[in-house]
Amino acid sequence: VNPSAPDPSLPIAVFDSGVGGLTVLHECLVSLPEEDYLYLGDDARFPYGAKSDAELRECSERNTRYLVDRGAKLIVIACNSAASAGLETAREIAAGSGVEVVAVIEPEAEIAAAITDSGRVGVLATRATVEGGAYLRALGRQHRELTVTQVAAPDLAAIIQRGFPFSESVVETVRSYCAPLRRAYVDTVILGCTHYPLVAPMLQRFLGRQVRLVTAGHALAATAQRLLESGGIAAPDTEEGSYRFLCTGNPASFRELGTRFLQLPLGDVELVDLRT
Amino acid sequence: VNPSAPDPSLPIAVFDSGVGGLTVLHECLVSLPEEDYLYLGDDARFPYGAKSDAELRECSERNTRYLVDRGAKLIVIACNSAASAGLETAREIAAGSGVEVVAVIEPEAEIAAAITDSGRVGVLATRATVEGGAYLRALGRQHRELTVTQVAAPDLAAIIQRGFPFSESVVETVRSYCAPLRRAYVDTVILGCTHYPLVAPMLQRFLGRQVRLVTAGHALAATAQRLLESGGIAAPDTEEGSYRFLCTGNPASFRELGTRFLQLPLGDVELVDLRT
Repeated sequence: VNPSAPDPSLPIAVFDSGVGGLTVLHECLVSLPEEDYLYLGDDARFPYGAKSDAELRECSERNTRYLVDRGAKLIVIACNSAASAGLETAREIAAGSGVEVVAVIEPEAEIAAAITDSGRVGVLATRATVEGGAYLRALGRQHRELTVTQVAAPDLAAIIQRGFPFSESVVETVRSYCAPLRRAYVDTVILGCTHYPLVAPMLQRFLGRQVRLVTAGHALAATAQRLLESGGIAAPDTEEGSYRFLCTGNPASFRELGTRFLQLPLGDVELVDLRT
Repeated sequence: VNPSAPDPSLPIAVFDSGVGGLTVLHECLVSLPEEDYLYLGDDARFPYGAKSDAELRECSERNTRYLVDRGAKLIVIACNSAASAGLETAREIAAGSGVEVVAVIEPEAEIAAAITDSGRVGVLATRATVEGGAYLRALGRQHRELTVTQVAAPDLAAIIQRGFPFSESVVETVRSYCAPLRRAYVDTVILGCTHYPLVAPMLQRFLGRQVRLVTAGHALAATAQRLLESGGIAAPDTEEGSYRFLCTGNPASFRELGTRFLQLPLGDVELVDLRT
């Protein structure tokens, strides 16, 4: 037992600028049901995708500091923008309390590199993520030669966020995004935006059944489990854990939209003020 | 090539008394995307669960005859009641045209027996299905000693059918159904009703991540694929296939409710008259 390790009975804290990260929490709730969770949706500053790197570092620092102070044994950054720009900052903040930080991007890249047979990997992500190249860099660090095909899906997250995603226009949009991935004969596709798991079956149909989809939630849940075990901070009992929600903007709309992303009831959403 | 085999370019036909079977179609669309599908919802006679065996044989015969006449290379019965009482009748009807019939129950039992490590298998199903014992019999035919724990979930299908299934009352209901399965230490659970995949993540959380869920859709898609390949009647090309819908009752409500179950748009729903 590491004497500086956090208390195993503390929750795992997850943050994002909105509801997208709830698909990550969803996977954690299913994969690690005995853990407690604390989710922070920084919806007063949604979307992070429109912010500068300096702003993102500031958001990541503030969120991490708040969650560590409130009590968390592990921080999960469930937002691509915050992960790209703010992971190092968050790690520095959390390290002072012996808390580790994991974030999207690297875990998906690790899993994709581990499971691809052909070495041809696709990345479907927002335009900002594709242009930022974070997945390309992460895949480049995987000690394996990979051929990566990136596809920017400019409308997909907004379509999913707007509402019920099973319309003909969504189908056509998703089909068009899948076409270049099919032509590249990828056998593994990283869903590089936390909104996309909500249309995973549709993507699977258009990509073909042999293509493996890697979601941030799945990858992060696996990484979190590994860290909890290696750090000796897994939940002390096997009872089902609890989960609760904080947001910085509008609890009512966060709750309504969030239920669809979590696929579980949210219960009360607490409004917190993180301006300081 | 079997000269009496059906034309490989014909669709796979799926029938049920309502929208539940759309979760089976969903799995087929994802697993076998290059096939064409024709789905018949006999919603004028919903629910099949309330019918006598004689009535169920009649429904199965009529549906099968209609679908074979309209052109189908494989019939899938995606309804427990029709499968229990009507499979043999349907097979006799379809055999005249060289068409095979597959149905829920047996494929799930095969997969569960194949994947359980401990031999302790759970079945979560409607009261009628549990009392009818079809899964017990199917599991008893699997040439392996299995300890089966059945749990009747009297409200679950109705709750799911009624609407958005992510409320606290659904959570409490699902949790209570999972408790006896947890106490029995099953490592595999058959979801013995086609509605249940819509709450699969919730079930996974309450049962624990180590428990494997077997859905009718997953099992039937695998069985259908095997039959298509062994019969040499798989779709002749690798393009994405089409799907279309027939119902006997109310196309508008079938379409609205069905979209949620299919997780894809239904398009037009054709009203057909099967009274003769």
